[in-house]
Amino acid sequence: MKQLLVAAFAASLQTLVSGLWPVPAEMTKGNAIISIDVDHLAIVPTSHSCSILDKAISRYLYMIKKEDFVPPLDYNAPNFVVSAKMTGLNITIASQDETLTMDTDESYCLTIAEGTGVLNANTVYGALRGLETFSQLIVYNYGKHIIKDTPITISDAPVFKHRGLSLDTARNYYPLDSLKRTIDGLSYTKMNVLHWHIVDSHSWPVESKFNPDLFVKGAYGPTMIYTHEQVSEIIQYAKERGVRVIPEFDMPGHTYIVGQSMPEIMSCLNDQPRWDITAAQPPSGQLNIVKPGAYDFTANVVREYSGLFTDNVFHVGGDEVNRKCWLNDISVQTHLNSTNTTIETVLENYYDFLYKNLQYRNKVGMCWEETLMHTNFTVPKDTIIQAWIDQTSVVDIVKKGYRVVASPYMDTYLDCGHGPILTNMPKGNSWCNPFKSWMRIYDYDPLTNITDAASAELVLGGEVALWSEQSDPVVLDRYLWPRAAAYGETLWSGRNDTATGKPRGFDNSAPRIQEHRERLLLRGIAAEPLVPLWCVRNPGMCELPAELF
Amino acid sequence: MKQLLVAAFAASLQTLVSGLWPVPAEMTKGNAIISIDVDHLAIVPTSHSCSILDKAISRYLYMIKKEDFVPPLDYNAPNFVVSAKMTGLNITIASQDETLTMDTDESYCLTIAEGTGVLNANTVYGALRGLETFSQLIVYNYGKHIIKDTPITISDAPVFKHRGLSLDTARNYYPLDSLKRTIDGLSYTKMNVLHWHIVDSHSWPVESKFNPDLFVKGAYGPTMIYTHEQVSEIIQYAKERGVRVIPEFDMPGHTYIVGQSMPEIMSCLNDQPRWDITAAQPPSGQLNIVKPGAYDFTANVVREYSGLFTDNVFHVGGDEVNRKCWLNDISVQTHLNSTNTTIETVLENYYDFLYKNLQYRNKVGMCWEETLMHTNFTVPKDTIIQAWIDQTSVVDIVKKGYRVVASPYMDTYLDCGHGPILTNMPKGNSWCNPFKSWMRIYDYDPLTNITDAASAELVLGGEVALWSEQSDPVVLDRYLWPRAAAYGETLWSGRNDTATGKPRGFDNSAPRIQEHRERLLLRGIAAEPLVPLWCVRNPGMCELPAELF
Repeated sequence: MKQLLVAAFAASLQTLVSGLWPVPAEMTKGNAIISIDVDHLAIVPTSHSCSILDKAISRYLYMIKKEDFVPPLDYNAPNFVVSAKMTGLNITIASQDETLTMDTDESYCLTIAEGTGVLNANTVYGALRGLETFSQLIVYNYGKHIIKDTPITISDAPVFKHRGLSLDTARNYYPLDSLKRTIDGLSYTKMNVLHWHIVDSHSWPVESKFNPDLFVKGAYGPTMIYTHEQVSEIIQYAKERGVRVIPEFDMPGHTYIVGQSMPEIMSCLNDQPRWDITAAQPPSGQLNIVKPGAYDFTANVVREYSGLFTDNVFHVGGDEVNRKCWLNDISVQTHLNSTNTTIETVLENYYDFLYKNLQYRNKVGMCWEETLMHTNFTVPKDTIIQAWIDQTSVVDIVKKGYRVVASPYMDTYLDCGHGPILTNMPKGNSWCNPFKSWMRIYDYDPLTNITDAASAELVLGGEVALWSEQSDPVVLDRYLWPRAAAYGETLWSGRNDTATGKPRGFDNSAPRIQEHRERLLLRGIAAEPLVPLWCVRNPGMCELPAELF
Repeated sequence: MKQLLVAAFAASLQTLVSGLWPVPAEMTKGNAIISIDVDHLAIVPTSHSCSILDKAISRYLYMIKKEDFVPPLDYNAPNFVVSAKMTGLNITIASQDETLTMDTDESYCLTIAEGTGVLNANTVYGALRGLETFSQLIVYNYGKHIIKDTPITISDAPVFKHRGLSLDTARNYYPLDSLKRTIDGLSYTKMNVLHWHIVDSHSWPVESKFNPDLFVKGAYGPTMIYTHEQVSEIIQYAKERGVRVIPEFDMPGHTYIVGQSMPEIMSCLNDQPRWDITAAQPPSGQLNIVKPGAYDFTANVVREYSGLFTDNVFHVGGDEVNRKCWLNDISVQTHLNSTNTTIETVLENYYDFLYKNLQYRNKVGMCWEETLMHTNFTVPKDTIIQAWIDQTSVVDIVKKGYRVVASPYMDTYLDCGHGPILTNMPKGNSWCNPFKSWMRIYDYDPLTNITDAASAELVLGGEVALWSEQSDPVVLDRYLWPRAAAYGETLWSGRNDTATGKPRGFDNSAPRIQEHRERLLLRGIAAEPLVPLWCVRNPGMCELPAELF
């Protein structure tokens, strides 16, 4: 009897659970099943000519044809009875503007019914989101492609503008194909920002024209670089998938590698064995901000890379700046004494120079929260502040009237909980232990403790982050997926369910993210398993009543 | 100046650090570099004909030819001056006995010098170990294959007999190729046991002749099974690499899946939602040990699989047996009342039956420590007890005079620290948090608090374990490697350095395990990165003085 109840429960879930990830803002469903002859499906742009859309249609048609996706809850499904056929999808885009910024309209409306479906969007990027939804609706059943629960109408738009992944390509290097695959994953999850933490203390993989020694001496090797041309290729690849690329050149800290080519503008370069006095991580090294050369370097970085990276936002780091690194430096000491000033004033002047350079290059600055919260510098009001230290940082930044991207490390850092990064700590743990489960990430709402609409408006969105001390192309996918998608849904759909106004429960999200993992696998992304397959197939049976926690 | 010192330090390490993993018992080295023309290298068996050896020679010749392995510390090496050539390796094996048991002699002696090298071993399995060492000595430098530090003589043998990996193929399924790749990895690390935890509550992937419904209803699907033929293929594959396959059929707990075909012999089958009262994990279910059918099942399992699995050791589980599962069962209650007995006595009788069956099939039993430590059953004296609860379990088991395999979960469980396995615990952690870093695993000595030689003799060795709630073929390699190899070295070489008698420091092991990871990658195993490449290339610079911890 119990077994029968279990079977009935599972069967009911097969119709209840729609596998869409993220969930659309509004959706109405019917109870018919239509079939799609994927070999003759016509996806037709009905408005203006648009190569981004044409390419996207080709991609999605290819995927739809290639994918025989059986949702994990359908593993035992019957041969569904089909009542009608869908033969095409007409796409109409209102605007010809293909500019991609944080303010780009990504909304779309999708109607799935017998005959020809309709996808309407204001921009091509909205159409991309709609195509992704369309592709997720199609599943495979006994030799045929079908869409369940038709007719379907979806009206969808993101809750947050900035839905990103921060990827560190300096601790370890990632070849272009892994970056492209990652951008694919973002687009499958309706995320729209690749925050490319491209350089750091450990390596400088990006080509530099103003000083080629930066990458010749600073990259891990001649094959482990990103040329200007390759960077542009990535930016274009991302744009075609509705993903912005925001570069980060972290200054003045996290710059040891600059010392390989310009040691004369550095302080505390590779202090050993006590690097911990002057840095958060080995090797130590910061730009020596009393040296004119450090200002030249800063101006050159902003000039060269603000041209290469086309997004209007430019991230300049500013995290974990260590005062002792400078105070222990004789040249800094001499400067402070001779000018009767303090290191805080020098740092303030440095940032003033940096942000004036950004302004001169028409870039909106973005920085880690320390620049706003832990210096005397008056950060320009249009700067986007990235909160990472904790959830309250988000609230504090908003209180100061700044726009914020929320990535508190205890909720969004994907590398945590994988042991210490030092090589001699048998008893040690990851600095940000424990591992962030998809549930922990999913449960975080960037609007936590934000109580008024004006403040909420300043919360642009958030990012998951993968710092690469213990990641490289070999393990990239399983660090990212499907956990990045957990935040991805919150950022697209909001933490709360539209209908109830309350946080979506795990009964709703667990089966869907498990299905999303399987879909990512089929699309070539090596996402990790979350639970035993038995639990995937038996939703609700691998949990405990919440009151026990 | 500091930079120069750094460079000099790194250069000195290039000659100091030999990349062998695990480190051999004895090794003498010279200072010459010899080259090897890998296309014409003659590896010649000089004793009897032996197909295991012939196949191994083919494999290693193929690998040696294919691998152009540049150790990470040689990334900037000069074009080394070669003083002589090695043209061949003669292999002599004393015994024709190809039986592979825990007592098989795996020792070997290897001499590398100009002309023809010599590999002597008592058994073919010793020769396999020597070939692995030989392959690890060969590195690539400017278009040529070389061996550094010649002449070399190595005299090597394992400290522990049982050097294993326990792999759970029931929570999630692993196809044959992933099992073979895992056996490859074991052989590259001189590990010699695959403890195949083949069934568990979540699935029964192995073919059964005595009751086909077991796998027809219990496997995840018709393509997710191991036929008898495939099991034999794995056993043969493993034997050819010097790896024993010990199967585990966990009884009487962890058997929910048996209830799919034989619900009449089960207790507490899938208690929901409070499975936690009767099981450590959902779905709950134990053999109902008052039912004659449960005894028939047990005898059939031992009969069928003791024939299929050829090793003389047979693991029967016995972990996490839950008394409430039975005490809540009406049929058990009735039996206890009517016979005026206790569940402990019933369990004792069950185990007596189980172990008599093992004895009848000429198998040495192996079990988790609970059978010895937490029941009244008198475990047969030849049984091998697997300690998993903590380090002191090992000592306690030895005190009772039993042989032990050490796998304390806080030191050896590779799946820990990856978040909760339940689907609705946003604040939850892995039950065995934190993640076990390679250093934590490496630092564990199975002889901890074993003070006399007779007791030490009872410690057969150890196992790392991968429980597969959150693992499947997609992420298998990175869960296993190189961390499994950390314990692998301790089990082969002992925790202590032969020369000093003290534990090997991380200054010695970190660069070598990092190199081992790179070699595994080249051999097709997706081992995970441990640190930034900068740290790999700059040994000693990504640590802190130990006195700070």
